[in-house]
Amino acid sequence: MIGEQKKLGELAEMVQGELVGDPEVLIGGLANLVEAGPGEITFVADMKHQAGLKDCRAAAAIVPVSSPAAPLPLLRVQNPYLAAAIIHSFFTEEPFVATGIDSRAVIGRDCLIPAEVSISPLVFIGDRVRIGKRVAIHPGVVVGDEAVIGDDTVLHANVTVGRRCLIGNRVIIYSGAVIGSDGFGYATDREGRQIKRPQVGIVQIDDGVEIGANTCIDRATFGRTWIKSGVKIDNLVQLAHNVEIGENSLLVAQVGIAGSVSTGKNVVLGGQAGVVGHVRLEDRVMVAGKAGVHSDVEAGCIVSGAPAIPHKTWLRASAAYVRLPEMARELRDLKRLVAELSARLAAGQDREKN
Amino acid sequence: MIGEQKKLGELAEMVQGELVGDPEVLIGGLANLVEAGPGEITFVADMKHQAGLKDCRAAAAIVPVSSPAAPLPLLRVQNPYLAAAIIHSFFTEEPFVATGIDSRAVIGRDCLIPAEVSISPLVFIGDRVRIGKRVAIHPGVVVGDEAVIGDDTVLHANVTVGRRCLIGNRVIIYSGAVIGSDGFGYATDREGRQIKRPQVGIVQIDDGVEIGANTCIDRATFGRTWIKSGVKIDNLVQLAHNVEIGENSLLVAQVGIAGSVSTGKNVVLGGQAGVVGHVRLEDRVMVAGKAGVHSDVEAGCIVSGAPAIPHKTWLRASAAYVRLPEMARELRDLKRLVAELSARLAAGQDREKN
Amino acid sequence: MIGEQKKLGELAEMVQGELVGDPEVLIGGLANLVEAGPGEITFVADMKHQAGLKDCRAAAAIVPVSSPAAPLPLLRVQNPYLAAAIIHSFFTEEPFVATGIDSRAVIGRDCLIPAEVSISPLVFIGDRVRIGKRVAIHPGVVVGDEAVIGDDTVLHANVTVGRRCLIGNRVIIYSGAVIGSDGFGYATDREGRQIKRPQVGIVQIDDGVEIGANTCIDRATFGRTWIKSGVKIDNLVQLAHNVEIGENSLLVAQVGIAGSVSTGKNVVLGGQAGVVGHVRLEDRVMVAGKAGVHSDVEAGCIVSGAPAIPHKTWLRASAAYVRLPEMARELRDLKRLVAELSARLAAGQDREKN
Repeated sequence: MIGEQKKLGELAEMVQGELVGDPEVLIGGLANLVEAGPGEITFVADMKHQAGLKDCRAAAAIVPVSSPAAPLPLLRVQNPYLAAAIIHSFFTEEPFVATGIDSRAVIGRDCLIPAEVSISPLVFIGDRVRIGKRVAIHPGVVVGDEAVIGDDTVLHANVTVGRRCLIGNRVIIYSGAVIGSDGFGYATDREGRQIKRPQVGIVQIDDGVEIGANTCIDRATFGRTWIKSGVKIDNLVQLAHNVEIGENSLLVAQVGIAGSVSTGKNVVLGGQAGVVGHVRLEDRVMVAGKAGVHSDVEAGCIVSGAPAIPHKTWLRASAAYVRLPEMARELRDLKRLVAELSARLAAGQDREKN
Repeated sequence: MIGEQKKLGELAEMVQGELVGDPEVLIGGLANLVEAGPGEITFVADMKHQAGLKDCRAAAAIVPVSSPAAPLPLLRVQNPYLAAAIIHSFFTEEPFVATGIDSRAVIGRDCLIPAEVSISPLVFIGDRVRIGKRVAIHPGVVVGDEAVIGDDTVLHANVTVGRRCLIGNRVIIYSGAVIGSDGFGYATDREGRQIKRPQVGIVQIDDGVEIGANTCIDRATFGRTWIKSGVKIDNLVQLAHNVEIGENSLLVAQVGIAGSVSTGKNVVLGGQAGVVGHVRLEDRVMVAGKAGVHSDVEAGCIVSGAPAIPHKTWLRASAAYVRLPEMARELRDLKRLVAELSARLAAGQDREKN
Repeated sequence: MIGEQKKLGELAEMVQGELVGDPEVLIGGLANLVEAGPGEITFVADMKHQAGLKDCRAAAAIVPVSSPAAPLPLLRVQNPYLAAAIIHSFFTEEPFVATGIDSRAVIGRDCLIPAEVSISPLVFIGDRVRIGKRVAIHPGVVVGDEAVIGDDTVLHANVTVGRRCLIGNRVIIYSGAVIGSDGFGYATDREGRQIKRPQVGIVQIDDGVEIGANTCIDRATFGRTWIKSGVKIDNLVQLAHNVEIGENSLLVAQVGIAGSVSTGKNVVLGGQAGVVGHVRLEDRVMVAGKAGVHSDVEAGCIVSGAPAIPHKTWLRASAAYVRLPEMARELRDLKRLVAELSARLAAGQDREKN
């Protein structure tokens, strides 16, 4: 990696870390413990991996605040993952290169597209679309009529953005994601046929959101499906019509959220979790992987299981679950024992009477 | 919304509703309670939202049959959702505009394509494909050789239809859906290697079906995977080879159905439900979200849980599950108590003997 | 099906089967019991379907070794599915037809592409990509810069392969699959914002792998996400950064595997199963559909449920689960009964004392 170099002292400042060692050491990249070479900084997320520092070839290491000295310069920080993310991003960030609109892209009428964009071949942009500065649109992307794409946003290959959807600034949408397909809304008639309810709303994606590969976000029936700023969504997630996800929430892969669910800020949903329609998850709720949420969850609560219950209860219940067959047997034995006792007692009292 | 207008009396007829108010009022669109303005009709799905009618600005409202009078004209109907869907569809339906075959689409040899179609740029159509009238094919769609697409069908952006698959009339397939990829069939040899079983069947989609974004429907090993008329399938659903889904069934997002499962009519599968291979679900079966069906289910039954059991049993069992740790403790206490009782009784009887 | 014909004796040799009947019979294809006609061979996977041979019109049948004689020539084999797969593949295999690079494909700079390929219209290939011999790339596929595609590999329509990813020989990737999107890695700062951790690794897919429609395989944070040779992955599967899947493993649809999970060889994961991060599944582990694996699993073990437990325990526990409400009631009754007994005993002993 031959790119910009930075002094260790400057990196320490960048992440507000305490430097143990020479601030003049030059760093040109970041790598993990095994791969880091001379001129690179590495990181150790927790104390138990500390031993690995002895054999590593890195020029310096990011470590937790309480780490002991090591044979190489250390950068002690509160959150090594965070510091590593910031420093690694600094080294890997590529400047935006505006290649303009490729002649093999198809652009509709009356679009507003600045010169400073990179629109690849085989991209389709509908009519009256507005695109921000420094936007990169990869091959195979389709953007519907009247959609709006904010500044510094990246649409990876084969993404679909439906008409009238609003995508904010600094948004990244990974390949195959579908933003703004129709919500799943039908009314059943007397003959049992499903009659489509028109889905006339939009999807609004705020600034700094990331949306994983092949994730689907349906447009609202009325109004908007709304992903607020800083939300990060993994692959293959399903968000139904009129869902609202609060700021900086994390949705892990294969989560499914039914219609009109809303969440507060900094909510976390584990992989394959599901939430039924019209439920509210307050700020900082954590839903364990595979959980099935059937009702509102208060701020800060952690829930697990399907139906979801408080995580601690679930831990105990699922531990007991393994013993369920044994419990059933014990219960059977106990019933027999009590019946015997009862009989013996009755016999004894009979004897007493006589 | 400036489009066609309709008299309230005409709308009442359209949905066989009872009109309370002036039949001459002109209506030009439908919106929800909050957004509906003058000239628009709104709807109230159940009595508890009735209060909202006082503050609403709509020209009229669709309400349940038993609704009391309100400050605006009412259209009383059996099923407000259904009536709203019908009226809303009337106002939002856009006439088909045939733009023909765009010169930047790629069309194979010996296709049958009528003039009255809209085939977008960057569409790929294979050889010997037959396409119906008023078909709209959006950018990025790929249709394999010898596929057949019925009249009035819409293929949204980036859909893939495999070769020889049959798509009916009035079908809507949303972005990223894949119809006709190979089924997942392997035979394991003595060395533990997986040998592919050729998948030579097709997918047949009947009239009026809707298929959600990024949903996958595999072609049959032999014969056909068959989605019957009126079925509505949500996003990210997986239907394996040789599955048959009965008329007007609803499959909510992220459902997974294994090979050779068949269902009757009007079956409903909740989100993230799964069904193991070769199982039969009879007419009107309802499978709760996240349920895992391991065996046949009789007509009209509702099942929940994994493994799926009758819904009522599941409700009681999952309520008891929360108390499982407590039950385990009670059982332990009871065992101790019974042992004590037994000892006391034995001691008493010993005393008696002496 | 008018293609190559083969004598029954030759087919018997091909699958090391025991032939009961005339080795000179000519066979031109394979079909299932219902559809097979004269000139075709059919197969019966197990004895219970044996009866169907009487009415079938096939020229011969592949059957289990212990099958009794039948009105048609039989090919007795250890594993009828395997023999049928081998024979069917022989008849259905189409020779590779090199059409070269279509003029409507977009090819980047400095690529290495042999003449013997078929690159369809509307394909996008980035810069410095290397493509093997007899590779077929279908419309809508996007291959990123510096990716490598091995010999005899097929990329179906609308597949995305990210930059620098390595795809082996004889790999099949089905439509909509995304190989090499960024892993889901963030560090949370003090304000609760999610800071992206750069994902600089790659995805490596070894020889003979198949990857289902709309499946997502994320690139590694550092190093590689690695799918080893012969692995078969179904549709809509999620494999996170740095996952390693051992040789010849099977991953059924909608499986989700979190970051840094590794598996041995011949592991099987049932549909919708999930595995939390950093877990190890040893050789031949089987994970039931819908199971949620939270910890390492030893070689050859079968696990079910969420959290996953040994399959046999789960079978008993889930059978007991249905009886849980009844158990709760029995426990309640028993508590009452024991309290009564205790009181009676105390009363008796009081009487005794007086």
